[in-house]
Parts: sequence; C-alpha cells; structure tokens
Amino acid sequence: MNHDPTASPTELSLPDAARTLLATSKQGSLATLDPRDGAPHASLVELLPTSRGDVIFFTSNLAVHTTNLKLDERASVLVWDTSDGDDILAQQRMTIVGEFVEEPKTDELAQAWVELHPGAKNYLGFKDFNFYRLVTRRARYIAGFGRMDWIDAETFAAATPDPIAASAPGIIAHMNEDHEHNLIDYARAFLGRSSASAAKMKGIDRYGFDVVVSDEDGEPSVARLMFSKEIASAREARAELVAFAKKAREVLGDASLAARRDRG
Amino acid sequence: MNHDPTASPTELSLPDAARTLLATSKQGSLATLDPRDGAPHASLVELLPTSRGDVIFFTSNLAVHTTNLKLDERASVLVWDTSDGDDILAQQRMTIVGEFVEEPKTDELAQAWVELHPGAKNYLGFKDFNFYRLVTRRARYIAGFGRMDWIDAETFAAATPDPIAASAPGIIAHMNEDHEHNLIDYARAFLGRSSASAAKMKGIDRYGFDVVVSDEDGEPSVARLMFSKEIASAREARAELVAFAKKAREVLGDASLAARRDRG
Repeated sequence: MNHDPTASPTELSLPDAARTLLATSKQGSLATLDPRDGAPHASLVELLPTSRGDVIFFTSNLAVHTTNLKLDERASVLVWDTSDGDDILAQQRMTIVGEFVEEPKTDELAQAWVELHPGAKNYLGFKDFNFYRLVTRRARYIAGFGRMDWIDAETFAAATPDPIAASAPGIIAHMNEDHEHNLIDYARAFLGRSSASAAKMKGIDRYGFDVVVSDEDGEPSVARLMFSKEIASAREARAELVAFAKKAREVLGDASLAARRDRG
Repeated sequence: MNHDPTASPTELSLPDAARTLLATSKQGSLATLDPRDGAPHASLVELLPTSRGDVIFFTSNLAVHTTNLKLDERASVLVWDTSDGDDILAQQRMTIVGEFVEEPKTDELAQAWVELHPGAKNYLGFKDFNFYRLVTRRARYIAGFGRMDWIDAETFAAATPDPIAASAPGIIAHMNEDHEHNLIDYARAFLGRSSASAAKMKGIDRYGFDVVVSDEDGEPSVARLMFSKEIASAREARAELVAFAKKAREVLGDASLAARRDRG
C-alpha cells in the first residue's frame, strides 16, 4: 500500500483489489443461519456482483439457504480466486458480510443474470425463483499470506474494480502459453535474474504485473514489474508488454538470442 | 436408491455417495458465527476427512474462523465436486453441520495432515496452529439437480466411501483421453446409441460408470453402464472396462472398425 500521498501507487489498494476479486467472481459459498438451531449453513451459489459492491443471488424457494435468509437476513458470502488451485491458502479470497433484502425481478436484472449464468435461462421464469441482494456491511479480504484486512461498507462501496480485470485471465494465459521467452527476458533484463530459466505471469492490473521466476536450482520467487504509466485497457497492456520485450532485447543484446537458442 | 431388499444396488446410496464426496475432499468453505453480531462467517479452509465422517481442520489462532469457533462451537463446512466447473448447480456438493471440539495434536494426525496438505510442513510446529474436529450432526447432500436429502449423524457415520473413489479421477482421465473410441463403442453396443459420435466418462464407482453420450445433432445425455459384479479396486475396474470393450467389438462387428476409420 502507498503511504506517501505524493507517490504514484505501485499496486492495487486493498479495497480496489477486493472489489476486483468480487467483480470477477461468478460463484461462491453462502453462509446463512439455520432456524432450527441457529447453526451457520454453508451452501454453493451462483452470484452477480453489483457496481457498488453488493451481491445478487437468484435462488429457489426450495433451497435451504432461501428458507434461512427469509427468516434471518444476516449472511455472508465467500468468493475466492480459482485461477490456481494448488495452494488455496496462498490465493486471494474474501468474505462479504451483510444483510439480505429482496430484489425486484426486473427484465434488466434477469438479462444481466443470464449473461453471466447462461444455464439459468431454463428456469428464469419460474415463480419460485427470486432475486435477493446481500447489502454489504463489511468485507474481510485476504490477498494472500500476511496481507489482509477488514474493509468497511463505505470504503468498499467507494473502491473500484481494476479496469483490466476482465481481460487479465486471457492476457495471463496468452503470455504463459506463447510468450514465456519474453517473460524470461524481462526477469533477466529488469529483475537481475540473469540465470532465470522459467517465468510465469501470475497477475496483472493497471499498474503492472507479477512474474513467478525460477532458476535451474532454487525456489521460485515472485517479482513485480511496473508499467510506464497507469493503463486502462487490454490494448494498453499489450503495448506495454511489447515495449518491455523490445527494451529487454536491447538490454540483453545477444544474450537473449543465445538463451532462446539454448531453450530450443 | 434401492427399495427392493432382494435386488442388487445399481448405484451408490445417497449416504455412501455423500461419504465418497467427503473422502475425496481436501478443501471447503467453513461457516462459523461472528461473536460481534452473530452473523455467519464463510471462509476458505483446508480439511482432512476422518474414517467416521467427521472433519478435521488445522488452523491459526489469527484466523477469524478460529476466533469464532472458540466462542461458539456451531459450524458447518461445504465441500463440492471440483471435477467439472462448468455448471456448479449440476455438481454434487454437501453441507456438513456439527459442533467443533479441540483435537489433540498427535504425531499420527500431524503426519496424515501433511500427507494431504504438503504445504503445511512449513508451519506444522507453530504453537498458534491447532487441530479442531467438526463432529458431524447432520449433512445436506445434493447429488445434482433433484437428487438431495438430509442425512442424520448415525446414517452418515455408518455409510462408507466408495472403495474406488481415490482411483476414479485417474480412471476417468485415462478413459476420456485415450479410450474415447471404446466409450463410443459402449454407447453404440449397449445403450442403443448407434449414431453416437462422442462419449465421455463422467463418474465411476463400485457398481458401474456414467457416460455422457452425444450424437452429431442433439443435446448430450447421461447413461449408466453396470459392471458384471460389484468391484473393489482399480484393477477390477480395468478388467471390467476391458471386458466391455471386447464385448462391444463382438456386438458391433465390422461396424466398430469402420466407425474408427471414419474418426481417423
């Protein structure tokens, strides 16, 4: 986080990162209260994030969580980063705590729901399926090991998802599948990792991107590379990445070409 | 489910299927109660299933859910089938409701935990990480659309995971990657799907397996094929599948070979 108001940010603020995770989530785990004994009930749900950081659900009267939320509006929903399943405790995740209110079944909302959840078109008109809104009161965001905080409702509502969040999975997949040699060049040219033998992009946002760099021996480590300016689109991200590749080749000179031949 | 006591079962009972899902789960979503206002708190956790259907957790005193469970032992944990992420509402999942008790940190338990969660070796000895057991009181198991029920504690404890559950993902991947032509043959020979053009194994247990069959036109549909006897190991599953392939070739005769040439 950036504590000098005159300095440029180098990474998403915790509230912006939290809103970005929510904006890219389609499913989660809902926790409601069972009226039989007050026990918390965890269930799997589809969801639709709103532009102010509330969460919409479309659910059947037959579901246990619907019975529960009608009797007690207190609930929370867990969303998590599904991009890397190897170590869930290193992944970002968030609990949004709030209260449920009924949400009118407008055509606009129904259309937004089906765009995100195409399977719902088969039961969108069913009378016993209704929309509910979880009004966010606070959120517990865990960015990974050791970086976490509670975020209050006002801060959460005022924060904004990263503008390139929707494009990020495609950019990351493309770089890792087709441009790992460029990522290795970045590590060698700009991160002082002259013996880097593998590199994977792990995350990208409007300020820069994270690369997991490995040598032949030794544990992989994560480093961040900053864009020349704050970007606002996938097109600008591409331009920045191309400029990085060009600059890396200049820095590395023949070493880059030789290394590429070695990797064959 | 089998209602005729003289008939052989054709599929896992709902309690056995539920215990099978738990036995193959390594992570889940925990719902605890926040002491501030009684709100249910959903969080992401690693877990270890026990042989009687309880669930063990290894968690830091710094985690919100640890603070919560120490003040109120009521909780539930959601586990879900992660094998096919396309339509979560068609996937099996389960909520296990119970109460937390502290679990002694024995060497045996620590070893079992690290076998399932190798990353934990880095903090296994930390004094502020402890084991807790969620003692199962009831479970809500959803096998998929329309097949679901509550299971009481006694029934859940008496049920058993399927003996080939641990091998199932490997068998399914192997059949779908290398033996789809055999699966198509099964569909043509035994399911009356003479124009089947694609087939994927979706599940396998001690009684048989499920195949998703597609024609050139039309929606894919799921059908079940039964083994000649109840099996108890991956080796027996392989023998049954080989026998299926041989029998299918006999039934289909030259048609099978011709079809294979067409698929080229």
